[in-house]
Amino acid sequence: MPDCFALRGNVCFASEKRELMTFPRTYVICEDGLCRGVCPELPREYAGIPIEDYGDCLIIPGMVDLHIHAPQFTYRSMGMDCELMEWLRRYAFPEEARYKDLDYAARAYGLFAGKMSSSATTRAVIFGTVHRDATILLMDLMESTGLISFVGKVNMDRNAPDELREESADASAFDTFGFINEANRRGYLRTKPILTPRFIPSCSDALLNELSEVRRAYDLPVQSHLSENPDEVRMVMRLMPDAAFYGDGYDRFGLFGREARTVMAHCIYSTDAEIERIRQNSVWVAHCPNSNMNLASGIAPVRRYLREGIRVGLGSDVAGGQTESMFRAVTDAIQVSKLYWRYVDEKAKPLTFPESFALATRSGGSFFGRVGSFEDGFEFDAVVLDDSVLPVSRPLTLAERLERAFYLGLDQHGIRAKYVRGLAVDRDFGSHHSSSSL
Amino acid sequence: MPDCFALRGNVCFASEKRELMTFPRTYVICEDGLCRGVCPELPREYAGIPIEDYGDCLIIPGMVDLHIHAPQFTYRSMGMDCELMEWLRRYAFPEEARYKDLDYAARAYGLFAGKMSSSATTRAVIFGTVHRDATILLMDLMESTGLISFVGKVNMDRNAPDELREESADASAFDTFGFINEANRRGYLRTKPILTPRFIPSCSDALLNELSEVRRAYDLPVQSHLSENPDEVRMVMRLMPDAAFYGDGYDRFGLFGREARTVMAHCIYSTDAEIERIRQNSVWVAHCPNSNMNLASGIAPVRRYLREGIRVGLGSDVAGGQTESMFRAVTDAIQVSKLYWRYVDEKAKPLTFPESFALATRSGGSFFGRVGSFEDGFEFDAVVLDDSVLPVSRPLTLAERLERAFYLGLDQHGIRAKYVRGLAVDRDFGSHHSSSSL
Repeated sequence: MPDCFALRGNVCFASEKRELMTFPRTYVICEDGLCRGVCPELPREYAGIPIEDYGDCLIIPGMVDLHIHAPQFTYRSMGMDCELMEWLRRYAFPEEARYKDLDYAARAYGLFAGKMSSSATTRAVIFGTVHRDATILLMDLMESTGLISFVGKVNMDRNAPDELREESADASAFDTFGFINEANRRGYLRTKPILTPRFIPSCSDALLNELSEVRRAYDLPVQSHLSENPDEVRMVMRLMPDAAFYGDGYDRFGLFGREARTVMAHCIYSTDAEIERIRQNSVWVAHCPNSNMNLASGIAPVRRYLREGIRVGLGSDVAGGQTESMFRAVTDAIQVSKLYWRYVDEKAKPLTFPESFALATRSGGSFFGRVGSFEDGFEFDAVVLDDSVLPVSRPLTLAERLERAFYLGLDQHGIRAKYVRGLAVDRDFGSHHSSSSL
Repeated sequence: MPDCFALRGNVCFASEKRELMTFPRTYVICEDGLCRGVCPELPREYAGIPIEDYGDCLIIPGMVDLHIHAPQFTYRSMGMDCELMEWLRRYAFPEEARYKDLDYAARAYGLFAGKMSSSATTRAVIFGTVHRDATILLMDLMESTGLISFVGKVNMDRNAPDELREESADASAFDTFGFINEANRRGYLRTKPILTPRFIPSCSDALLNELSEVRRAYDLPVQSHLSENPDEVRMVMRLMPDAAFYGDGYDRFGLFGREARTVMAHCIYSTDAEIERIRQNSVWVAHCPNSNMNLASGIAPVRRYLREGIRVGLGSDVAGGQTESMFRAVTDAIQVSKLYWRYVDEKAKPLTFPESFALATRSGGSFFGRVGSFEDGFEFDAVVLDDSVLPVSRPLTLAERLERAFYLGLDQHGIRAKYVRGLAVDRDFGSHHSSSSL
């Protein structure tokens, strides 16, 4: 008898066409971690299975965060007046250097994992630091949260402060092998390694070449940054003059889609040729609107990406992004698309709420397989939202309630339960793990 | 013996130059509703006064919301995919029409007043509806919250749906006299009427002329909308072809600064001549960045306004703005200023956190007098923030803690106490007032 149960509540998810599907007071069935669809009454074959009735709550697929820096969580929402280089120098690099110390890493990553577990996120693609052991520790913690994630040990062998720059391409690759071997040895059920060259400015050709071999040896996925900032793009073209465009710099080393499952964060200043390569190579774009505002990077042409059939998900990009909240990412994506329409391209219709909701669920979820919907056969990730604390003066539709829950950030205090691949997540993980002084 | 007490905590406020002043573990003294400055130790003349010690909490001036629509609170964060005209037709107008029914108004305004009392806002400039009695009811409720506010009965005699359009300029003026007389009769301590022509598209010249007489008769302040949207600006120039620019349309009727204390929301598309008139007439600009994103209006040139010495405050503009949170307004103002720098004018340096914090406190506060600082002689409005729920992995400066509190929206769940003109506000107002079904 397979492990089977049903939730009952007001079920909402996005269709493949990015339309909002709403089902009042409906069952959604989970069998062995997979969704068996929604139905107003339980079919006979499921008679007698355990039912968790969430009353008038909203039940939605879990949020998928395609881009987040775990070691930057501790200083999220700070230093936002700095420009990018000053921000890296004053905040990002000094903080990342602290993770050499495993005691610090345990404390800080414990806070991060705690917040991940209490958030609406069920899947995440995560940057660690260059430190092998601290990144393994991060994987241990993420595994304990019950979330499903890819976690990467960062590679950088140039253009980084001494305490974070790896000694050589060879040393970086050696540590990466060690990281992957250790991760595999631990036999995580939910946590997988991902290759993580930070970005081309901090990775020499020799290092990218080494990583290309690591990738092939282990068939690993890849995450990195792409075309976030005009200065960065110019720097890449200086550093790699033979590359046709920034993304070609990854592609020349087999680190840009095709057989390598790849997600690239930002893609704001991608040229036509780069966009075409992203499409051809089936690279996922992690759109990070909050970070792109905070760092004054700009606004990615998401409408164009969708029109061209490119795979787009959303990323919180903590701590360029101020918060891990994916509800915030959903509404930020809509808001910046409206400014993009107003100031950059009046033909680029702003994103709607159902579209942005789709990006954060099934569209980003596709990086993990069949994830982000309650259609039959999807992995069963669910978040239960209790919006009864929000006042109403007249009856609301489910679509209105869902939109309001996102715009008012109900993920901060209104989550009642969370399921990942059919398992209920202990959302109090953080309080068990963080030390009393925190 | 005057009514005197002190708070103790980590005191932060903005200087006149919009720099952040931070005072760890300091007293801030209140005497008869006025601030008597901050001091590390109590001076002898205040020995023995009651002290409220808030430990490691942050103590900041209350937030000043220069533009909010009370009747739109009930549908905030909904219908955000609509364009402006559809949004007005589907949400704003039908909802505002409901306030003819005083039972509905009591319920809905009770929710609004409850949220105002629990928020970080201590002062607000508020739109009601065209309905005289419902707007008086709103004033009754606002008076009970302990906040200090200006509340306006809206005027509109054209370009509005039948159920909201007033019969004639004369009828609108008559009702406005009635509204003001009733408000004055009730002898509120904290709640004052303000003239509120909705905007020129919905006010005939005859109506503006009537309002100009009402204004002079009662020496009332004025609130309205200005240059929010290119279509709106074009419509105004068609409706009032003799006006030199949109704002001149108000100025011709004495409803645009000078002797009339005036706040105009938005000012995104103000021409050079309009900006000069705003400055000359000492009109306050209510910058509403969240609304301006949601309605795809654009981004106001706030850096220019500050450089030219124009008075700028912030507005939540519920429900074009999705939330009454002024913390959100502060960080939104920074974020949109970064996109403005990137896409509109690279000479317009983005706003910093201290600058935006200053806009939400002393700059907007100046509409109410000496409000928004803890300098000697300012009215004593204070918000006490408990950020101990936010995790830290290393010691933070007060400036970092304050910035983080704003970016993470600590006003939603981290307010410990609020004082307005020296009186502690009952932040549970809402729970006493809203009916059990809500």
